[in-house]
Amino acid sequence: MKIQFFQKPILITLLALFFILQTHAQENLPFGQRKEIISPEVHQDNSVTFRLLAPNADSVSVTGDFAQGSEKMTKDADGVWSFTTHPLPSELYTYAFMVNGLQMNDPNNVYYRRDVASTLNIILVGGGEADLYKVNDVPHGTVAKRWYESPGNKANRRITIYTPPGYESDKTSYPVLYLLHGMGGDEEAWPTLGRATQIIDNLIARGKAKPMIIVMPNGNVAQEAAPGESSDGFYKPNFRLPNTMDGKYEETFIDIINFVDKNYRTVRNKSGRAIAGLSMGGYHSSHISRYYPNTFDYVGLFSAAIVPDKNMKSKVYENIDGTLLKQKQNGCKLYWIGIGKEDFLYQANTDYRKKLDAMDFKYIYRESEGGHTWRNWRIYLSEFLPLLFN
Amino acid sequence: MKIQFFQKPILITLLALFFILQTHAQENLPFGQRKEIISPEVHQDNSVTFRLLAPNADSVSVTGDFAQGSEKMTKDADGVWSFTTHPLPSELYTYAFMVNGLQMNDPNNVYYRRDVASTLNIILVGGGEADLYKVNDVPHGTVAKRWYESPGNKANRRITIYTPPGYESDKTSYPVLYLLHGMGGDEEAWPTLGRATQIIDNLIARGKAKPMIIVMPNGNVAQEAAPGESSDGFYKPNFRLPNTMDGKYEETFIDIINFVDKNYRTVRNKSGRAIAGLSMGGYHSSHISRYYPNTFDYVGLFSAAIVPDKNMKSKVYENIDGTLLKQKQNGCKLYWIGIGKEDFLYQANTDYRKKLDAMDFKYIYRESEGGHTWRNWRIYLSEFLPLLFN
Repeated sequence: MKIQFFQKPILITLLALFFILQTHAQENLPFGQRKEIISPEVHQDNSVTFRLLAPNADSVSVTGDFAQGSEKMTKDADGVWSFTTHPLPSELYTYAFMVNGLQMNDPNNVYYRRDVASTLNIILVGGGEADLYKVNDVPHGTVAKRWYESPGNKANRRITIYTPPGYESDKTSYPVLYLLHGMGGDEEAWPTLGRATQIIDNLIARGKAKPMIIVMPNGNVAQEAAPGESSDGFYKPNFRLPNTMDGKYEETFIDIINFVDKNYRTVRNKSGRAIAGLSMGGYHSSHISRYYPNTFDYVGLFSAAIVPDKNMKSKVYENIDGTLLKQKQNGCKLYWIGIGKEDFLYQANTDYRKKLDAMDFKYIYRESEGGHTWRNWRIYLSEFLPLLFN
Repeated sequence: MKIQFFQKPILITLLALFFILQTHAQENLPFGQRKEIISPEVHQDNSVTFRLLAPNADSVSVTGDFAQGSEKMTKDADGVWSFTTHPLPSELYTYAFMVNGLQMNDPNNVYYRRDVASTLNIILVGGGEADLYKVNDVPHGTVAKRWYESPGNKANRRITIYTPPGYESDKTSYPVLYLLHGMGGDEEAWPTLGRATQIIDNLIARGKAKPMIIVMPNGNVAQEAAPGESSDGFYKPNFRLPNTMDGKYEETFIDIINFVDKNYRTVRNKSGRAIAGLSMGGYHSSHISRYYPNTFDYVGLFSAAIVPDKNMKSKVYENIDGTLLKQKQNGCKLYWIGIGKEDFLYQANTDYRKKLDAMDFKYIYRESEGGHTWRNWRIYLSEFLPLLFN
């Protein structure tokens, strides 16, 4: 591999530049470290080594969802702390270091995911279910960040839209999945934490899912866009936002459907629409699919919150049982409920299934291990997508 | 502001969940900190306070491009270290903390930018030129991540494309700016470090720039996509990539033009095309605009590398003087050169201007303070865009 690009004088000045720039954070060139650290390193057998150069630290450990608790790291003669895991099951993991009791990110890993107000490093261990979360050498859809007019909220709002490979070159009309995030999420949640665009690319390539458009809106009507992406500027994100589960999003969801049907080649009827979401997004999916009769043939509730606050006054929450019965009578090709055994919403979902059973409302029920986690929501999405639009 | 969303039992289980989740990194809820830390805090007078909770640390400082060197922080009784700057000029700054000599990011700031293999926190201080870098309450264009076929590289490659507000609803054909990154950059560089989509949104809204499409390709032909966005997986990014300045990108640039002209409503002639880039992207812009005669009416060289390696054999670099003369004779509405007084490429640009002067090739020359920095490239872009397509 030939890597001489420059005439010698230019090369020398370039190298000189690198040393000058060490002191300037803005350029962030990867020079000037005493030792090149690779962290994390995923080995052939799916064990992972974490490394941190911290010669003066007294104690360093690594904490993440690959382990219970934290794992002590050990220091070598060069001041590099390291820890190697056992072979790990295939998954997308998050982790951080604890240095003398202070949590910090891995300076040698540029891959991060924000979840509300925290940002953690990620690692992808393949060879199993997480192969669906990888960017593989398959045709890729387009991921667009757009703004749409919401007359119901008197606002322009940001939205993430995935169109499948081929969308731009053919004339086909595509079915649409509306995919909703949980409390504290936004239009960035499914594409980042949920790896939704990788999952659908891979499932389409494997012939396991129909090509479809996936619409990922922002379900916080008090927000125009994800933190940092609106005129509110860079602020510390909050978990609890106002007007999040008060019916307003459901009422104004028609603005999103209208926007999508106007701007994309969609299948503009019930058989071409699915709606699914996690936690608060499952709540929204259940209520939206009731509230707009004959609009969605496919509904997915992932670890869903179900029951609205009794004091919440909205026409969306009037006559829930009656509209649910109507939804059943109108027909709904797939009503899918997924919940983890350790989820704090397990009982609420059990109660809800009893209600559905009592009215002979057919659904598919998927009970998984674990709780209220992105790990489960990625798995649910991977299982739900192949069932759509068949 | 009413924020009671849940029935009381659900609220209680939700709150219980938050405490459980403190130990689970994956959820990253902003609870469980002993004290709510706001950092950074930009004050009315544009001074900025940085804060870090680190009760056991012996010394903490903050380092960034808002200051020369680093600034010592002081600890309060709660173990919170802080430092407040003087009022700062309007700019997008990067920074990090040094804790007992170890660099770490600010755990209370979710806003980051990656530059090659480093990831630093950012702050935006408004009230001046950085107002162009903000998301303001103006119409927003669409930013799409797409993949295009490059027959010349026998690869599918990722590309960022900005279409202006109104593009999807009107029938107009738009001019196109091809905007190229530097060495170590990729199709993410201009949208993130360069704030290019915010700058163009704001300039269009102010009536200072024509609505246009901005195409931001990946100039490393050895790469299909930015790190983490290709089937190479999550690896540590490198500054020096093979085949970066060997003529291959210039030769195959026609694949990008063809893709854009086929997939977008573009002005398909010279008067509707501009090309500009920083550092290596300036190098590419100078050579591409020569190599494809009568293709670009607008050329921008931002802190450009100019002269190819003498040993580099490519038809792109044959007869540079002759093709440059031809470019002049064919006509070029704008040839814009920007360079900082402290840039290591200052002399190379001076020499290049002498060459242009000698052949009476007209250009606009912008000499700025500072060196080879994103600060300058954002300023150059902000000044260059208003000159296009008039």
